[in-house]
Amino acid sequence: MIRVAIIGQGLVALHFEVGLERLKNNEIPDYGVPLREWLPYKYSDIEIVASYDVDESKVGKTVYELARRNYPGDSIPGSLKDIVVSRGIHLNSMKGLPFKARGREEDKGIDAALNELIDEWRNLNVDVLINVMTTEPVEAVGDPREIERRALHGDLTASQTYAYAATLYAAKYRPVTFVNAIPSPLANDPGFIKLCTERKCTILGDDGSTGATPFTADLLEHMYERNRKVIDIAQFNIGGNTDFLALNLPERNIMKKKTKSGIVEDILGYEAPNYIRPTGYLEPLGDKKFVAMIVEYYSFGEFKDEFYILMRINDSPALAGLLVDLARIGRIALDRQAYGTIYEVNAFYMKRPGPHGSRAVSKYHAFQKLLNWLGISDPRHKA
Amino acid sequence: MIRVAIIGQGLVALHFEVGLERLKNNEIPDYGVPLREWLPYKYSDIEIVASYDVDESKVGKTVYELARRNYPGDSIPGSLKDIVVSRGIHLNSMKGLPFKARGREEDKGIDAALNELIDEWRNLNVDVLINVMTTEPVEAVGDPREIERRALHGDLTASQTYAYAATLYAAKYRPVTFVNAIPSPLANDPGFIKLCTERKCTILGDDGSTGATPFTADLLEHMYERNRKVIDIAQFNIGGNTDFLALNLPERNIMKKKTKSGIVEDILGYEAPNYIRPTGYLEPLGDKKFVAMIVEYYSFGEFKDEFYILMRINDSPALAGLLVDLARIGRIALDRQAYGTIYEVNAFYMKRPGPHGSRAVSKYHAFQKLLNWLGISDPRHKA
Amino acid sequence: MIRVAIIGQGLVALHFEVGLERLKNNEIPDYGVPLREWLPYKYSDIEIVASYDVDESKVGKTVYELARRNYPGDSIPGSLKDIVVSRGIHLNSMKGLPFKARGREEDKGIDAALNELIDEWRNLNVDVLINVMTTEPVEAVGDPREIERRALHGDLTASQTYAYAATLYAAKYRPVTFVNAIPSPLANDPGFIKLCTERKCTILGDDGSTGATPFTADLLEHMYERNRKVIDIAQFNIGGNTDFLALNLPERNIMKKKTKSGIVEDILGYEAPNYIRPTGYLEPLGDKKFVAMIVEYYSFGEFKDEFYILMRINDSPALAGLLVDLARIGRIALDRQAYGTIYEVNAFYMKRPGPHGSRAVSKYHAFQKLLNWLGISDPRHKA
Amino acid sequence: MIRVAIIGQGLVALHFEVGLERLKNNEIPDYGVPLREWLPYKYSDIEIVASYDVDESKVGKTVYELARRNYPGDSIPGSLKDIVVSRGIHLNSMKGLPFKARGREEDKGIDAALNELIDEWRNLNVDVLINVMTTEPVEAVGDPREIERRALHGDLTASQTYAYAATLYAAKYRPVTFVNAIPSPLANDPGFIKLCTERKCTILGDDGSTGATPFTADLLEHMYERNRKVIDIAQFNIGGNTDFLALNLPERNIMKKKTKSGIVEDILGYEAPNYIRPTGYLEPLGDKKFVAMIVEYYSFGEFKDEFYILMRINDSPALAGLLVDLARIGRIALDRQAYGTIYEVNAFYMKRPGPHGSRAVSKYHAFQKLLNWLGISDPRHKA
Repeated sequence: MIRVAIIGQGLVALHFEVGLERLKNNEIPDYGVPLREWLPYKYSDIEIVASYDVDESKVGKTVYELARRNYPGDSIPGSLKDIVVSRGIHLNSMKGLPFKARGREEDKGIDAALNELIDEWRNLNVDVLINVMTTEPVEAVGDPREIERRALHGDLTASQTYAYAATLYAAKYRPVTFVNAIPSPLANDPGFIKLCTERKCTILGDDGSTGATPFTADLLEHMYERNRKVIDIAQFNIGGNTDFLALNLPERNIMKKKTKSGIVEDILGYEAPNYIRPTGYLEPLGDKKFVAMIVEYYSFGEFKDEFYILMRINDSPALAGLLVDLARIGRIALDRQAYGTIYEVNAFYMKRPGPHGSRAVSKYHAFQKLLNWLGISDPRHKA
Repeated sequence: MIRVAIIGQGLVALHFEVGLERLKNNEIPDYGVPLREWLPYKYSDIEIVASYDVDESKVGKTVYELARRNYPGDSIPGSLKDIVVSRGIHLNSMKGLPFKARGREEDKGIDAALNELIDEWRNLNVDVLINVMTTEPVEAVGDPREIERRALHGDLTASQTYAYAATLYAAKYRPVTFVNAIPSPLANDPGFIKLCTERKCTILGDDGSTGATPFTADLLEHMYERNRKVIDIAQFNIGGNTDFLALNLPERNIMKKKTKSGIVEDILGYEAPNYIRPTGYLEPLGDKKFVAMIVEYYSFGEFKDEFYILMRINDSPALAGLLVDLARIGRIALDRQAYGTIYEVNAFYMKRPGPHGSRAVSKYHAFQKLLNWLGISDPRHKA
Repeated sequence: MIRVAIIGQGLVALHFEVGLERLKNNEIPDYGVPLREWLPYKYSDIEIVASYDVDESKVGKTVYELARRNYPGDSIPGSLKDIVVSRGIHLNSMKGLPFKARGREEDKGIDAALNELIDEWRNLNVDVLINVMTTEPVEAVGDPREIERRALHGDLTASQTYAYAATLYAAKYRPVTFVNAIPSPLANDPGFIKLCTERKCTILGDDGSTGATPFTADLLEHMYERNRKVIDIAQFNIGGNTDFLALNLPERNIMKKKTKSGIVEDILGYEAPNYIRPTGYLEPLGDKKFVAMIVEYYSFGEFKDEFYILMRINDSPALAGLLVDLARIGRIALDRQAYGTIYEVNAFYMKRPGPHGSRAVSKYHAFQKLLNWLGISDPRHKA
Repeated sequence: MIRVAIIGQGLVALHFEVGLERLKNNEIPDYGVPLREWLPYKYSDIEIVASYDVDESKVGKTVYELARRNYPGDSIPGSLKDIVVSRGIHLNSMKGLPFKARGREEDKGIDAALNELIDEWRNLNVDVLINVMTTEPVEAVGDPREIERRALHGDLTASQTYAYAATLYAAKYRPVTFVNAIPSPLANDPGFIKLCTERKCTILGDDGSTGATPFTADLLEHMYERNRKVIDIAQFNIGGNTDFLALNLPERNIMKKKTKSGIVEDILGYEAPNYIRPTGYLEPLGDKKFVAMIVEYYSFGEFKDEFYILMRINDSPALAGLLVDLARIGRIALDRQAYGTIYEVNAFYMKRPGPHGSRAVSKYHAFQKLLNWLGISDPRHKA
């Protein structure tokens, strides 16, 4: 059994919860789950035992109710009636967004809130925490002691506070994996990695790799393997979900820029001029974002070629599919007592794989590394 | 030294010849040459010693003159004045195309023509033959004895006849590599592979892998590694060079369809419905073809996503860049006495890698295999 | 009241029938109906009284049943239970397609079949016949007497036979408008126009103008009005409906090529090289076709610019929306006794507007002409 | 004769100057000049007599020298040696941009600078002033007296100051047309229009309409004429010329947003959600910008269709082509004593046609209005 608690009951959480139940019921195929049934844990081993949010319109509702609200026509698995959204930590994580939010710490102080959380996780025997809250503006702390100091003063962001709570829980009750699917630097924060290693906790992160970024990584690898000289890359992203709304607040946009830079130089071996970032919010696009991209390069004889790529991607389901793997791998990490963070996992699933300072590789290479780490082999390559 | 003879003095040959001389003169960077300077042979080791064609407007001209005709404004390396286009074998290879062509065999019979060719190659000490003639309609023969029988009766196509001549030359004078960069099944013809193995000859082929096909292979790998279910793929190609003109003759188009099919099922593991083929000839596009592509797939939860890809690719230079590698690898094959054909080389450079019955793999995997076979390692991955 | 009979109970007919009933019930807005409520006839004035097909799986079924089969999830207007599909004229119109078809004339001969049809129309007081059968291979006849001669021998195609029946009906009972929304040259056949004029019948046609063709016409106008020199145009269309299936039969594809050519030269004033045609059939695309287009042109100073256009278009609903206008205009034509054909109507709604020899104009110009002919004005331009 | 003075010796000016001379010499066709030779004035009637800039690297140089610097390989018309760039008005118009700039007013005060300018224009008998300086941040003033007040205190922007100088020149010496091809609101400033009308001056503006904006206007018209319901529009622009560099300074970007908004609602009749703006600066793209666009709409039956449009446009030549018309029309305006501004001209050539408060129309409609105002007819529509 893998007992999972969700942090941030947004669209990604919803697609993960609904999709997972449908998978268990054999109502849908496992498309979008990279490691499918190759892992020792089955889909039915994953059980979602808790979900946290600070949006007043969600707290106290069942996931079933929220799913009905979002997908009125669809049949929603009845098992989702068992998951009730609990009030989580706020710490201004939704500041500036048009939602009414209130955190548990606002009533009883951060210390009591943390203790409550840890007790809840203990009662539920939580193995894996999955962080899919809205993008928050935040910098790495760097030092474990400084993290502790800030935690007591409520000076961490919501994500950092949850990650800190995970280390407390791991130290006190049982090892836990914290999957950080948002841009906040946790697996990239040496302070958190050190804390985790000390306390038998694993952070996988940061920023789940879906959409155009992993595709761009592989496209760059394709260029590299032909020794094409990339002249420039521009990539625009626009969508209508909360993530795009948040990214259009200037202080949050900076988070994504950080996540995406670096891959160009690491994969190509030189810094091709590029403009890669989320660009705008357009409400009617909803969760199906639009990506437009141009890549210009020199071919043999310095002839100039161009690629133009357009994508329409359902943003939240793509990440939800990865979470089906990450929940299982999170448990495997605990089984192996692989605390701290695991580059081989992050390199495939994350936009900015921890630990800090890791070199970006193409997703093709990352997939090989991942399979090696897991000790499984691609069935296509078997005799 | 690697002494190269070109078969088919078209645009690809021209870009190879001009580009190679400029490379040697350090006038251009080596963009578009996948293995750059990683190989034991240098660019300056390659010497083009002969070129064959049957187009009356080319036979007897120097490559310098032909380059001037095509690129009036550019500076053309003077060393190309030394390569004079010789009359080659025709055997109707340009039938239906708007060019006046005449083959050497039309004057003196196929037997004498073959002997002459072999003697020329002997005098020039040819190591590598590179076949870049126009696409011809042809089926594999299968049996070495049948190949010999047909050769004597002039019942082979021009490409097959050249490949047959290569085996005679190898048996009689010295080992040779025949690089088949066009769709004719030679590396995919068990008869030719057998003949080559017997006679110390290597065929690398078939159909140089440039443009949308290798990119599609890697895109499919990207889909596979995320377990996305490809619903359909359509890919159109249109251009204005002789290759597109030839492919629009119905009997020649069939050659390309054969080359491109297979990769979808081999890489994805299932046969996604697809429509992938060269579509039309539009003269003003010239050598810079236009490719349009759609890929639809199911993501997690059976949500439907779409990719749209457009490319503008200078067709001939892309292949010419690969030839800079293939000439060098052709020589390495001889050094290693690796006769017959070499899947590890073909898998990366060819659209339809021989030997017949090989499974298509993504170009990412092929690149790893190639580096392994060559015994070189990617400098990015060195400590 | 406008009593409409449908010829060809395919997807277009279905979308027209379902959409029209929903419009009448105020269940949907009138998007895709160019003239909206600007016309003297209301949507509720249109009544579909008959539908003809030769597909054995449709004959005898109600349109309600067929709609349920195609759109299992949707609510289908109950009024469609009143329309039962009658057996129509076949005359090999579905030859080569994978459907079991049988025509009324196969049992009782063409003469009796024609008389039956006309009697049915008389009983139903049909005002407008709308031809949306599958594309058929056919040439214009040219001469009214030859049409009559062939009609008696069953030597006309299905579309021609229906149009001929319309002239008989008009002559004998009451004027009628025949809307020819498929490529068969009827409004472009001087013989049919002459017959119609003699017999108080109007043919609007040929080939309903939806998708990329009208957009291309307006794009060319945009180029013309800036004096940009179009270098080349390539346009690919691929889809998965019966129309694409039929067009991939070589003898039927020719029909579309004829329809689309001509606009380039007529609008630009010179013949820019172009490759514009339906390209392939890919079943999973269904009715939502994919169009890819490139336009290259010279700007001031002979700088070369490029446009790339991709479209995803629901093929059948687009045409169905036009039929809501054409049914009403068909009736207005009768009110005005405008027999023969009406260029001002055809120029906007048709890909190949009759009469034969008409110059193609952009759809912008055609829309102005249409409003003028109808005597209505664009509300945006009112004081 | 039409004596033209250029304000802002950037890329647009260069393409106008070089292109015009080549046109006069019959070295290039007149592509990109909308009204071609339909006007009473010939290309050879246009004479460029002065050019102003504040960039120290340009002042004192001949246009010939500047053209050689930008297009080293090309043959540059020798007549451009006669145009020497004079120091213009700065007033911080290039603040924040990486150029060393100094204005005439910095040495001698604004009053003396204005008088000098007017005297120069008088000596040259200037008929038309063309403003193509870099986008500046500016608001309309509104009141003629306030304009005069600010002019004396140097509180106008550079564009406003030039326009004010034009009114002084017109009042004192001879009528003049001021073509405002940049976003600064001059034709949209009721104060300037009033001043012009009083003083026999004409302002054509604002913001020359090239690139994606006029195309979008016509695309929206195409949607409107089919009653398609536009769901959303996103449009990205990225380029590498000075204009994009300037627009990425936040205070200048606002200028473009203002220019482009409005067309959606005016043409469609409702405000479709949209995100249309210049997005980024990417140096290697140079003057050939990249535009990516998505339009989603509802077709008949509320089926959802999508258009995706990509463009590669040489930015400066496109505007230069329009200037060949605007110089001639500027003269025609003076011949007709049409002072103030002329909506019929602005509506076609400008993104934000003055006077203030004018409704945006599609460029198709604008072209008809333009031809009507000019009294010329489209040769395609002649008998």
